[in-house]
Amino acid sequence: MQIDLNCDLGEGFGIYTAGFDGEVMPHITSANVACGWHAGDPVVMQATVEMALNFNIMVGAHPGYPDLMGFGRREMNCSPKELESYILYQVGALQAFCRSRNLKMQHVKPHGALYHAVLADPELGGALARAVQKADPELILLTLSGPKGNVMAEICGDLGLRVAREAFPDRAYNPDGTLVSRNLPGAVLEDPQEVAVRALSMARDKIALTPEGESVRIEAHTLCVHGDSPAAVASARAIRRILEENNIRLVSLQQLLN
Amino acid sequence: MQIDLNCDLGEGFGIYTAGFDGEVMPHITSANVACGWHAGDPVVMQATVEMALNFNIMVGAHPGYPDLMGFGRREMNCSPKELESYILYQVGALQAFCRSRNLKMQHVKPHGALYHAVLADPELGGALARAVQKADPELILLTLSGPKGNVMAEICGDLGLRVAREAFPDRAYNPDGTLVSRNLPGAVLEDPQEVAVRALSMARDKIALTPEGESVRIEAHTLCVHGDSPAAVASARAIRRILEENNIRLVSLQQLLN
Amino acid sequence: MQIDLNCDLGEGFGIYTAGFDGEVMPHITSANVACGWHAGDPVVMQATVEMALNFNIMVGAHPGYPDLMGFGRREMNCSPKELESYILYQVGALQAFCRSRNLKMQHVKPHGALYHAVLADPELGGALARAVQKADPELILLTLSGPKGNVMAEICGDLGLRVAREAFPDRAYNPDGTLVSRNLPGAVLEDPQEVAVRALSMARDKIALTPEGESVRIEAHTLCVHGDSPAAVASARAIRRILEENNIRLVSLQQLLN
Amino acid sequence: MQIDLNCDLGEGFGIYTAGFDGEVMPHITSANVACGWHAGDPVVMQATVEMALNFNIMVGAHPGYPDLMGFGRREMNCSPKELESYILYQVGALQAFCRSRNLKMQHVKPHGALYHAVLADPELGGALARAVQKADPELILLTLSGPKGNVMAEICGDLGLRVAREAFPDRAYNPDGTLVSRNLPGAVLEDPQEVAVRALSMARDKIALTPEGESVRIEAHTLCVHGDSPAAVASARAIRRILEENNIRLVSLQQLLN
Repeated sequence: MQIDLNCDLGEGFGIYTAGFDGEVMPHITSANVACGWHAGDPVVMQATVEMALNFNIMVGAHPGYPDLMGFGRREMNCSPKELESYILYQVGALQAFCRSRNLKMQHVKPHGALYHAVLADPELGGALARAVQKADPELILLTLSGPKGNVMAEICGDLGLRVAREAFPDRAYNPDGTLVSRNLPGAVLEDPQEVAVRALSMARDKIALTPEGESVRIEAHTLCVHGDSPAAVASARAIRRILEENNIRLVSLQQLLN
Repeated sequence: MQIDLNCDLGEGFGIYTAGFDGEVMPHITSANVACGWHAGDPVVMQATVEMALNFNIMVGAHPGYPDLMGFGRREMNCSPKELESYILYQVGALQAFCRSRNLKMQHVKPHGALYHAVLADPELGGALARAVQKADPELILLTLSGPKGNVMAEICGDLGLRVAREAFPDRAYNPDGTLVSRNLPGAVLEDPQEVAVRALSMARDKIALTPEGESVRIEAHTLCVHGDSPAAVASARAIRRILEENNIRLVSLQQLLN
Repeated sequence: MQIDLNCDLGEGFGIYTAGFDGEVMPHITSANVACGWHAGDPVVMQATVEMALNFNIMVGAHPGYPDLMGFGRREMNCSPKELESYILYQVGALQAFCRSRNLKMQHVKPHGALYHAVLADPELGGALARAVQKADPELILLTLSGPKGNVMAEICGDLGLRVAREAFPDRAYNPDGTLVSRNLPGAVLEDPQEVAVRALSMARDKIALTPEGESVRIEAHTLCVHGDSPAAVASARAIRRILEENNIRLVSLQQLLN
Repeated sequence: MQIDLNCDLGEGFGIYTAGFDGEVMPHITSANVACGWHAGDPVVMQATVEMALNFNIMVGAHPGYPDLMGFGRREMNCSPKELESYILYQVGALQAFCRSRNLKMQHVKPHGALYHAVLADPELGGALARAVQKADPELILLTLSGPKGNVMAEICGDLGLRVAREAFPDRAYNPDGTLVSRNLPGAVLEDPQEVAVRALSMARDKIALTPEGESVRIEAHTLCVHGDSPAAVASARAIRRILEENNIRLVSLQQLLN
């Protein structure tokens, strides 16, 4: 049994720092690197790729809306044509940093509001998938596990693009496999040990939990961990430990999907 | 005898248009495409690469300072480290649009104040050359002919990077091979026929002229033409015609330097 | 009988020009000046205020979303709190240029997607109105005539803020007083003389027309004209002429609402 | 005896935080608030003005170059005309937040590379002073004490604009009253108590110290303190305490210059 752990990284900009990249990198296998639009700048991107190399983890692009002020969390009503160009631009920029170090970019994971927009609108989903394929047909597109990611997965399948589905160990799930809205009680878990136990269920038993503790079947190639606070890093560390203790191999998406 | 003609293109942004790309493309062999920082946006970049393919001309990156409001014409005091990242970012973004159409990017020409900054400061010149080499060691770096471009050419030579030197048919030259400052009388020529005659002298005889009409020896692989006004397009057209009439082949830098 | 004519102006940015400000200004009474977010930059803003002074027309702020690449035409999912700050920022910036010339800003008209967002969401409408009131309680808020602008007008009324309702002489109306969607046939008129005749009906008879030519009652303090093309300027000129020929005084909102 | 203490604040942007505004505000009398170009955004600006009101300290604008990525620390070669517009824009934006709370903006202090550019180039200095005067002739312009600020002070004097000169308790001075370059040993002091003792000398005795401990006469209306690290806040606290213990009143520039 094996699984990938992914985390958003490289979210600083200019003098601004964000996240605890150096502390979470030892625990993950795939880094989603911001590409300068919702976060990140070229100096940060270059440094983050270098850091990923040092920790021997795989690099993916984490493109977002052109909205630094809103951290890419606000939906913007872009057209599919605009979106395709935006993705190619951001993915290409990060590819240059990867290639400059003889590193092949592994995957693309859209950020924030864009992550959700491509799930909700198949035209946008198609634009994303085409852009990723045009950037490099060997890239893996990372999207949500559960029913909401199915259309995106189909779109990729039709294009011959590999998909990785992700689950969130720090989130409760609805019985249908969708995430419980953040606004509802019990939707987000914060205790690192509890989060780690959920991660183990997801990786070993393909099971997520509802707020009431019921089991929900979930298929995931990768678990999303966070590195934006010391508590988040503690969760990442606890997840890695519990998975290793249970003989679940942590491997990159590249190894997993080969 | 043969020479390349290059022109800055793809300088629109959002609703804003700039230049007469479709009218100048039939006359040139190499397009310098803006990369979204001083001008250009991803939609414009994608469309410009497509247009270059249709006209069968080669594409290069035209990176600039992060200063859309000043069109990259204002020097910014960036460090070599920052500059290297900025170039890689912009070149990489345009490479994605090229690769998506199975087009190999031919060259890189820095824009505006950056063009001059790398000539004036060898540390910045080194940062530019390293970035270009890291993006793709087969790229050609385009820089000024005459003494001011010599250090940049040496830097590239030391790295094994190919260089193309450019001359300006619409500019008068000093006896030492430098450009006459734009502020001085006679520095800039506007009559398309006169500009074309100068282009012929440059291409055939390796000669530029001073404001007084004296000959100055100049070596150039490429002539820079403009497409930002109807008069500029007329100059480009006249240059192409006079060169062809005199059996000077118009070839891309890629063919020229092979 | 009297009415105001308003037009969006000052939409250039850096080297980019947009619109025919100098040609439309003689025909209008109120200028909506872009504030640097969706269009405009400080140099353009200062020049536009100066030009408005020369033509003796009133100046209003035309704030938009932080989306220069999309010209503020793409809805962004901002919170009311964010919106209030964004409006205050942009209005304040333009007020400085007005005050520097002893000119009192007359009005505020939101731009593009923001114009529609505040009509659709009363929370955003409230944020806009509060921001305008905080910037200067004597400012006039410009919004749509017809049923869609009624909530916005009520919000302003509750705050004691003056409202001006606008109609579009180049647009067909639905029987309920809403605009016919741009995508439908007959929605947008282009013939300057036809547009002018509609403007006269609106100003004199309080009547707009459906695509089928039926009359729709419409109350407007101001008519929106365009200056973004030579044809648009011709419409503005024709509107002014027909109104003057019919003894309808063209006055600013400030005079109209006093 | 009395003096003002000023500090740069409101330097966050979007999700990014910067500085310890709430911890330094109790110790200062004048806040220099970033205006959204090199740092700060409208939401941050509004919150910072609110916080300044709560701490009963005066607010000034802290405009900078349009370079968020470089935090306004990189010189940009702007023209005087551009600079005037840029200052009016930023000052006006912050004035709106002040006016919305019935607060009169007290002063303007240029940020980073702009602070130094206006000292080095009287044409830029003139543009800054004119912009400040146009924004509000009662504003106080804050500039460096010592010989380097003299031209700026003269420019303001000629315009009838009030000037406040500032000194840096955490910096060593050359015998001519200029700051020792940051690159030289002993140029920057870090021990809060030592910084506080220097501040007392500056405020009470009009004396700064060279790296060798020699006295240099210095005239300052205000001392610049920092709030960008816990150690900086400790210095600000120590400065306030030592000044109060020595019966030096901490008053705003507005009170000081009246």
